[in-house]
Amino acid sequence: MRPVPSAFSGLALGAVLLVTPLQDPAPIRGFSPESSRTERALEQRFRAIPSPDSLRSYMKRLAARPNQVGSPYNKEGAEWLADLFRSWGLDAKIETFDVLFPTPRERRLELVAPTKFVARLQEPAVPGDPTSSQQAEQLPTYNAYSIDGDVTGPLVFVNYGIPADYERLERMGVSVKGAIVIAKYGGSWRGIKPKVAAEHGAIGTIIYSDPADDGYAQGDVYPVGPYRPKDGVQRGSVADMPLYPGDPLTPGVGATPDAKRLPLSEARTLTKIPVLPISYGDAQPLLAAIGGRVVPPEWRGALPITYKVGPGPATVHLKLAFNWDRKPLYDVIVRIPGTTAADEWVIRGNHRDGWVNGAADPISGLVALAEEARGLAELLRSGWKPKRTIIYAAWDGEEPGLLGSTEWAEAHADELQRHTVAYINTDGNGRGYLGMEGSHSLQQFVNEVAKDITDPETGLSVWKRRQLGTVSQARTAQERTALRSGADLKIGALGGGSDFTAFLQHLGVATLNLGYGGEGGDGIYHSIYDDFSHYTRFSDTSFVYGRALAQTVGTAVLRLAGADVLPFQFVGLSETVETYASEVKALLNTRRDDAIERNRQLDDGLFSAVNDPREPLQPPARADVAPALNFAPLDNALTALRQSAEGFESAYARAGGSPADAARANAILRGVEQTLLSDGLPRRPWYRHLIYASGFYTGYGTKTLPGIREAIEQGAWREAEQQVAIVAESLTNAAKRIDEAAAALK
Amino acid sequence: MRPVPSAFSGLALGAVLLVTPLQDPAPIRGFSPESSRTERALEQRFRAIPSPDSLRSYMKRLAARPNQVGSPYNKEGAEWLADLFRSWGLDAKIETFDVLFPTPRERRLELVAPTKFVARLQEPAVPGDPTSSQQAEQLPTYNAYSIDGDVTGPLVFVNYGIPADYERLERMGVSVKGAIVIAKYGGSWRGIKPKVAAEHGAIGTIIYSDPADDGYAQGDVYPVGPYRPKDGVQRGSVADMPLYPGDPLTPGVGATPDAKRLPLSEARTLTKIPVLPISYGDAQPLLAAIGGRVVPPEWRGALPITYKVGPGPATVHLKLAFNWDRKPLYDVIVRIPGTTAADEWVIRGNHRDGWVNGAADPISGLVALAEEARGLAELLRSGWKPKRTIIYAAWDGEEPGLLGSTEWAEAHADELQRHTVAYINTDGNGRGYLGMEGSHSLQQFVNEVAKDITDPETGLSVWKRRQLGTVSQARTAQERTALRSGADLKIGALGGGSDFTAFLQHLGVATLNLGYGGEGGDGIYHSIYDDFSHYTRFSDTSFVYGRALAQTVGTAVLRLAGADVLPFQFVGLSETVETYASEVKALLNTRRDDAIERNRQLDDGLFSAVNDPREPLQPPARADVAPALNFAPLDNALTALRQSAEGFESAYARAGGSPADAARANAILRGVEQTLLSDGLPRRPWYRHLIYASGFYTGYGTKTLPGIREAIEQGAWREAEQQVAIVAESLTNAAKRIDEAAAALK
Repeated sequence: MRPVPSAFSGLALGAVLLVTPLQDPAPIRGFSPESSRTERALEQRFRAIPSPDSLRSYMKRLAARPNQVGSPYNKEGAEWLADLFRSWGLDAKIETFDVLFPTPRERRLELVAPTKFVARLQEPAVPGDPTSSQQAEQLPTYNAYSIDGDVTGPLVFVNYGIPADYERLERMGVSVKGAIVIAKYGGSWRGIKPKVAAEHGAIGTIIYSDPADDGYAQGDVYPVGPYRPKDGVQRGSVADMPLYPGDPLTPGVGATPDAKRLPLSEARTLTKIPVLPISYGDAQPLLAAIGGRVVPPEWRGALPITYKVGPGPATVHLKLAFNWDRKPLYDVIVRIPGTTAADEWVIRGNHRDGWVNGAADPISGLVALAEEARGLAELLRSGWKPKRTIIYAAWDGEEPGLLGSTEWAEAHADELQRHTVAYINTDGNGRGYLGMEGSHSLQQFVNEVAKDITDPETGLSVWKRRQLGTVSQARTAQERTALRSGADLKIGALGGGSDFTAFLQHLGVATLNLGYGGEGGDGIYHSIYDDFSHYTRFSDTSFVYGRALAQTVGTAVLRLAGADVLPFQFVGLSETVETYASEVKALLNTRRDDAIERNRQLDDGLFSAVNDPREPLQPPARADVAPALNFAPLDNALTALRQSAEGFESAYARAGGSPADAARANAILRGVEQTLLSDGLPRRPWYRHLIYASGFYTGYGTKTLPGIREAIEQGAWREAEQQVAIVAESLTNAAKRIDEAAAALK
Repeated sequence: MRPVPSAFSGLALGAVLLVTPLQDPAPIRGFSPESSRTERALEQRFRAIPSPDSLRSYMKRLAARPNQVGSPYNKEGAEWLADLFRSWGLDAKIETFDVLFPTPRERRLELVAPTKFVARLQEPAVPGDPTSSQQAEQLPTYNAYSIDGDVTGPLVFVNYGIPADYERLERMGVSVKGAIVIAKYGGSWRGIKPKVAAEHGAIGTIIYSDPADDGYAQGDVYPVGPYRPKDGVQRGSVADMPLYPGDPLTPGVGATPDAKRLPLSEARTLTKIPVLPISYGDAQPLLAAIGGRVVPPEWRGALPITYKVGPGPATVHLKLAFNWDRKPLYDVIVRIPGTTAADEWVIRGNHRDGWVNGAADPISGLVALAEEARGLAELLRSGWKPKRTIIYAAWDGEEPGLLGSTEWAEAHADELQRHTVAYINTDGNGRGYLGMEGSHSLQQFVNEVAKDITDPETGLSVWKRRQLGTVSQARTAQERTALRSGADLKIGALGGGSDFTAFLQHLGVATLNLGYGGEGGDGIYHSIYDDFSHYTRFSDTSFVYGRALAQTVGTAVLRLAGADVLPFQFVGLSETVETYASEVKALLNTRRDDAIERNRQLDDGLFSAVNDPREPLQPPARADVAPALNFAPLDNALTALRQSAEGFESAYARAGGSPADAARANAILRGVEQTLLSDGLPRRPWYRHLIYASGFYTGYGTKTLPGIREAIEQGAWREAEQQVAIVAESLTNAAKRIDEAAAALK
């Protein structure tokens, strides 16, 4: 084995080859010089296989009709996909679960005062888009896991409906108690909006897509351009997934036929108040009828009205009733058995259910997964066999609540924790830059992969394009210098929002989530217009990024499945957690400084002094000043982690390359991520990862060091200090485990 | 005399008086303890005089009909005002000038392709607003000093039409050559838009008021609320005033009947291409017809369309023809002769012409001026006589180009430079915070005045309210600490845009510009809706801020006219110019760093790497890297200025109070501001102040150290260094003059 390759290795490669074509590039992390040569040759063959035409043909088939959970075409799609895998000689099976999946029975939204208006709640077919007219099979526009309700009340506009918006409303003297709130999509995961609204006493929530965010303000609307038309609606789940994802009736266990189920009344992830998503066509008459104060400037949308907060005089009646049925899920699972390390599993997944036709979400990612599988099948037919077992999964029921992946992960929890090396997720694909998120022990690994993939638009490596893109976005010279050093590009932290959640957050499996994006834009998310016609006119029209995704993820899978030593690297992890620790310390200091400042401003009479009597703002409440907290255990643990991470790098560089040593090290290495689990975060024990979680009040917005950070955010000082100790213990255990792996390597 | 009072003196005053009512407050700057007592008593009597009812009645009369330059009601208003002053026993006369003032003969704007639309170009009367229907007397909507033109061309949307917008267009591959541009109001003074458009080859300019800026996005539109209705238009001058203000035919000299006049063809401040302002009602069909690329997000307005840049397919025909007539100006001038220092003049002005009825602009400021004059008249009748001569001026023709003040200042240049102590300007008034701008030698003075005026809404001093308001806006703890130290609040620098311009920029008279504002908002600027009805419904409805303005400016006038030693203080000046010097040095460094970074990005291929082939952006041009410049002369001069300023403070503190010493010092002091003049800024010699100017490419946006700053901005390195030397010499002369004043005091 060789020392850690320089981060420039991928970049230098081309130049080196030009000058001395016979000299080998630096070996791939985890591979010896010799096994690296074999691996590179294998990968080169693999990357030649994925074909845009195949991707297009799969998408055409899979997105041809609405395929939501429980629909006929969903089941057909599972069977078609399993047959496709089998036609390539792969071992595919369908695993089923039974989950709660409510569908609308009645939806009514009307303005009852000061004028009358009945919301349309219907997305019309558009000319030139054949699948948009499949109305009989389309799910109506709704939010899954909203409770039933029949409420009438004054309307209050709450911006994005996140906690900060309610603080602002309170200063304006506006309460939502007994009111129906209307919130813009955006600013948080949608399920946060009804949760926070209910906490503030609202009786109903309407969520609409403002044209500022994905409608005409952004560009031409469909079918002229890619953005959301007047009557387009974003469906979506509003289950309280930051509590737990998956079937609301079977938290923590697989929703198998014989699973013990909660009664509906005890399902804690249903909303407390009824929720309905609407179009901006339906929202405009409601918003225009709201009176009261004009909104703060940053709350404005792009409708040609004066946005006001209310409450009233607009009064709305919202009536929702659902069929509270259980529906079957069909997860398609492909297993490629490993050889010398068959009990080590590399899992790769993408969901296959859409809200309607779902061409972009999820089919554009699913077709890359399928094309990877075809590539692996072709390699298998040519005699290759993976060292480790590879599992490809096409999940059902992601949209309502990560159902298919969560139930599968819960059902197989023990064996997954024992065997899984890593889980790689995708969830749709577009044009542009490679998005890389996940466990930071895989940061170096995924950077290395990215250096070997060619960007279709520029011919650069996707790593190089992303590096330069990040430089172009950097705000300081320091950031640019760091980026130009050639160090690994930082990967994002994962919270929730896709099928990696159960693997990472609940089981502690090292995870990556990958996908191309950042160029172009659209406004058809979770609508009937997310279909083949739209995708092939406006997104990755020639499927070259679909091919790049298949090449990227397939390469990652091959490397993970074939590496002599599993390519974990912990310096990136320790640096990242150090950054998070600095952030939570800074957060505490900022909260303290802000509290002191706010209290001083109250003492100084500042809020009365700046009060405009015609638009009065009530002074904020006196702030609780944060005490200093004992971060020493965390600092000590981070020191230990850093030392262990660096020690492991030395051991890896010096390792003799004995397969037995590697096998012993690998058995330890694949368990490191699990040392970062706890018994569960406060108030939501399903979430066990101590470094990453979806935010309790942000949803998609990842919270890093979530136990500590959310305690500080909520002013729970004692809990914050307890969480520091818990994280410190877990990092110390991680450090020990890494030391053991290093020792095994020698 | 006493040492400089602490900045908290105004604040401490109340408390001190409560505890020891017989103890005097600290003396007012420029007054001995004894004269200060007399002055305070006088001011107290004065401040009791201004009455909201009087202010309202003057406004009702003065804004009753359109009163633009050359209108019958303008002349009537001058006579009425002069008679009003005379009725109080004041010596009022009317001074006249003859100036070029074009008015529209023909205005036509139409979309000729791809569809037809003829712009309305007409503001309708609104119910409940009696003066909005005075159509026969209203000037049509137009921009004064646009040239005649009859042009047809493709339309290009240029955002605000400032230089940075054209850089962005160039990167998008869009040229305005041969095109008609449409720009939003805002982002610069309006006259910059046609100037920059013409420099880029455009053949016409349309300026419109986007509802994002002062229409429905901000609040309800008139007459429901105060904001700009669909057909409301902002009139305004587009003369190239950063070159020179005043009559385009008589630069530098008063436009008296016998003045030598340029032929119209040589008037350099007329636009190069025709310009027309329009409403958003007229703009929407034009903008909606523009194709091409979608605008950058920050260019979007609030119309319910997808904003695009063009060029075309929208093609417009713009035809403008004007009556190029000369019109009379009527400046109303009141003189209150001084006694012991009659050759020292304190001048106070506000214009009296509106674009239409002009209730807010300018009448709301003019009525305060009138009420001050009434107060002074009352004091005179009670036996008071000012030490210095006081001149009150109600300027005509401010709107088209600061005509009345500039011609008067040019006509009386020599005597004004010999005699004037200071000029105090206002230009309309609203609710909220005291805005203070001007010569920093008067910074301490105006802070001290502000501590003695009570804010009508909070009962705090207007100084205290502004301090707390500034604290509430501060972004850093350092800023807040500085503000809380009680030091003088920083006053803003003056560029152009109102009648102070000729006094400060051309004659070097120490200047203040004052007014209340910052609460509420409106969208009737320069429209027919700026009238009594609107003002009394939505602005300072009870005229309590009109009274506060009369109290503020009247107090300032009384102090300047009565001080033993003129209340200039130069530490504030030297600190301020030090800040400006730091800014221009930082600007140079930033330009250098930015140029190096941009060139590196070009070398690295960054712009190709981040290029989206579907929305291509051309790489920017290679940047010229700024050299280091010799700032040593400026630094040395600033050291000298600081020493002189501090030396003067010591001398002032130790001064014995002899009237002869004071008189000798005053004769020197009133000339200090003139030491900051040069022979003129590069390419615009009318502007002579070296510390402040309106920006050549920003207009309203003040440029401090304009010679140095604009040379750096334009990459004229040699000129920048020359300007450093010129500024250094002037500051050195200022320091010498201040030393002489200090010596005179002893």
